[in-house]
Amino acid sequence: MTWKGRNMTNETRLQRGHRQLDRIDGAGGQAVIAALADIAPDFATYLLEFPFGDIYSRDGLGLREREIATIAALAAMGHAQPQLKVHIRAGLNVGLTRDEIVEVLMQMAVYAGFPAALNGLFAAREVFAEAPA
Amino acid sequence: MTWKGRNMTNETRLQRGHRQLDRIDGAGGQAVIAALADIAPDFATYLLEFPFGDIYSRDGLGLREREIATIAALAAMGHAQPQLKVHIRAGLNVGLTRDEIVEVLMQMAVYAGFPAALNGLFAAREVFAEAPA
Amino acid sequence: MTWKGRNMTNETRLQRGHRQLDRIDGAGGQAVIAALADIAPDFATYLLEFPFGDIYSRDGLGLREREIATIAALAAMGHAQPQLKVHIRAGLNVGLTRDEIVEVLMQMAVYAGFPAALNGLFAAREVFAEAPA
Amino acid sequence: MTWKGRNMTNETRLQRGHRQLDRIDGAGGQAVIAALADIAPDFATYLLEFPFGDIYSRDGLGLREREIATIAALAAMGHAQPQLKVHIRAGLNVGLTRDEIVEVLMQMAVYAGFPAALNGLFAAREVFAEAPA
Amino acid sequence: MTWKGRNMTNETRLQRGHRQLDRIDGAGGQAVIAALADIAPDFATYLLEFPFGDIYSRDGLGLREREIATIAALAAMGHAQPQLKVHIRAGLNVGLTRDEIVEVLMQMAVYAGFPAALNGLFAAREVFAEAPA
Amino acid sequence: MTWKGRNMTNETRLQRGHRQLDRIDGAGGQAVIAALADIAPDFATYLLEFPFGDIYSRDGLGLREREIATIAALAAMGHAQPQLKVHIRAGLNVGLTRDEIVEVLMQMAVYAGFPAALNGLFAAREVFAEAPA
Repeated sequence: MTWKGRNMTNETRLQRGHRQLDRIDGAGGQAVIAALADIAPDFATYLLEFPFGDIYSRDGLGLREREIATIAALAAMGHAQPQLKVHIRAGLNVGLTRDEIVEVLMQMAVYAGFPAALNGLFAAREVFAEAPA
Repeated sequence: MTWKGRNMTNETRLQRGHRQLDRIDGAGGQAVIAALADIAPDFATYLLEFPFGDIYSRDGLGLREREIATIAALAAMGHAQPQLKVHIRAGLNVGLTRDEIVEVLMQMAVYAGFPAALNGLFAAREVFAEAPA
Repeated sequence: MTWKGRNMTNETRLQRGHRQLDRIDGAGGQAVIAALADIAPDFATYLLEFPFGDIYSRDGLGLREREIATIAALAAMGHAQPQLKVHIRAGLNVGLTRDEIVEVLMQMAVYAGFPAALNGLFAAREVFAEAPA
Repeated sequence: MTWKGRNMTNETRLQRGHRQLDRIDGAGGQAVIAALADIAPDFATYLLEFPFGDIYSRDGLGLREREIATIAALAAMGHAQPQLKVHIRAGLNVGLTRDEIVEVLMQMAVYAGFPAALNGLFAAREVFAEAPA
Repeated sequence: MTWKGRNMTNETRLQRGHRQLDRIDGAGGQAVIAALADIAPDFATYLLEFPFGDIYSRDGLGLREREIATIAALAAMGHAQPQLKVHIRAGLNVGLTRDEIVEVLMQMAVYAGFPAALNGLFAAREVFAEAPA
Repeated sequence: MTWKGRNMTNETRLQRGHRQLDRIDGAGGQAVIAALADIAPDFATYLLEFPFGDIYSRDGLGLREREIATIAALAAMGHAQPQLKVHIRAGLNVGLTRDEIVEVLMQMAVYAGFPAALNGLFAAREVFAEAPA
């Protein structure tokens, strides 16, 4: 089995996940981890290890591209507005412009319908209002 | 109202849509248009005009990024396998590598679950098998 | 509690359900009931009693309108193509024209995206090809 | 290509969209357009042009039937409560009775489950409480 | 047709449904029934009769197992948070432990993605905070 | 952070995942791993490590209960029929009876609608026909 994309270092998956979560989601990610502490602390560990320690740590696709994919998916599925907001902020963190995020959300009208796109755009409006331009 | 992203030329939306559909989806897109001819020809026109003449013709996001967003959304929603295959081919057409497409699909395990990612990867396997590497 | 919409007769819910299933879904409905016989015969009874004996037997909305609602919902949800085909046939049975069904399906592009609408239109094309015009 | 359903007048799609949005969604629709002004003004234009200027302006299906289809789809998909409320109001605007809207929503229990139907009925209860009977 | 699973007694479906709703959902279920009184009283009856009088009254699967299935499904679908909370309470009512409910919700990360699991866990956190441990 | 549920042994996550996949999904699981070999071998590793090495290896919920949850979720979401079939087989492997699986699938009519339940029951019919009773 080739293992070309996996980032192999001395860091544990958990350490790498913490580092990536900080870099990508910032305070929004930390808040999610904290909120899990009293209900499902193991799930916080899984969240750090698999999405962040494994997937977002892979070579082969840049973080800008990864956030485009995540924003598109969350807006299209339509049932995960809190996570969509976290990832719109994450998109800004990793270098997407507001205009690029708006383009991704508008495009979702084609694939998931106008309501999904509208709700995504309104989520972006809230995030942009809170963040420095 | 600003109109910064819209590509204003002498082309009609329908002409621009035909041009973009050819460029992005190639034969797969033409097959969809042809299949609509006897059931809903007007819908073929809307499909050319709005998604391709309007959205994919906008400045502000490259076609590689647009196909990442579309592949992610279609894989995450999970109920549109024929369209997912068309857009995996489109991703190759606009310059995504096979590895990049696989990265996007694997990432969907995080947001939409392992079955959605698996079904996306199996769609990619079919498309890659048909296309020259 | 008012009970204005419920059709109260001497028929049992099961009898009324059989009658309505025959009228609305015809052979397609009978095939579903038959297919359940060896796996979940009780479910066939529930299917006759609740959707057909209760809901489709209510006053307050005509069968044409009920089939418009069902075709729209099934096309929008996108994961129930066999049932969508049964209800496109049912729509024809209760008096919807092919053009009206196509209008409903095209409209779903707005609410559920172009792939859902396309897959609905292709389902209609199959049903129309089998049915006498 | 036949173009039987499309309403061809001297109005632009945008003008026709504005007229239809006013007629169908009234103040709720205007609020959506206004809310898009600072985040994605182009999307307001697309929303006026494609759903309202193109789809709702077509012959071949009455506005009552179109709103039945939209209410059914939005309730069934379940992730677009703000848009569902706008279209329950729109249904009243184009002549659906409260009882007819309730019938459509109850029917969704069959196709999308009881939670989707319940959440649709509770959305209707809010809209009906605000609107004059 | 065999009828092995159906619980046949002198109770009407409505009476049996009331009894099961009280037992399973307790006050949360009664609140739903009450909320339907002025918008769709017939739907309250259907809700008592089919899900509770028919399905939850069947032999062949215990109530603990039925609530595991319901919690899993509602968390995975992701668009029915009010109903998910009612059924997390119901799970506690029929004997699931908090830890078992958390296990079910964490497992949904695999099948429906991390956002669906997170939103389910946060719903559980709210329910557990209100209920005596 | 408590780590009460995680099964800590000298086995790697990958080894434990292989063992659990064999036990739960049997040949169906091996076929999925094999099918990933040429398109996304890393994803096969993630699939073994996270769902099977982590989640299914946890204490706190039995495998019968875990398969009830998975079957319910996959049937309710409705877009993952291949995975639903794998897990109906898995349910039989870990000790669920055919009748129990049918009960879970019928119950999904309440939460996800009759089409989702029907498609789940038809998947079960196929699996039961292939498996020795």
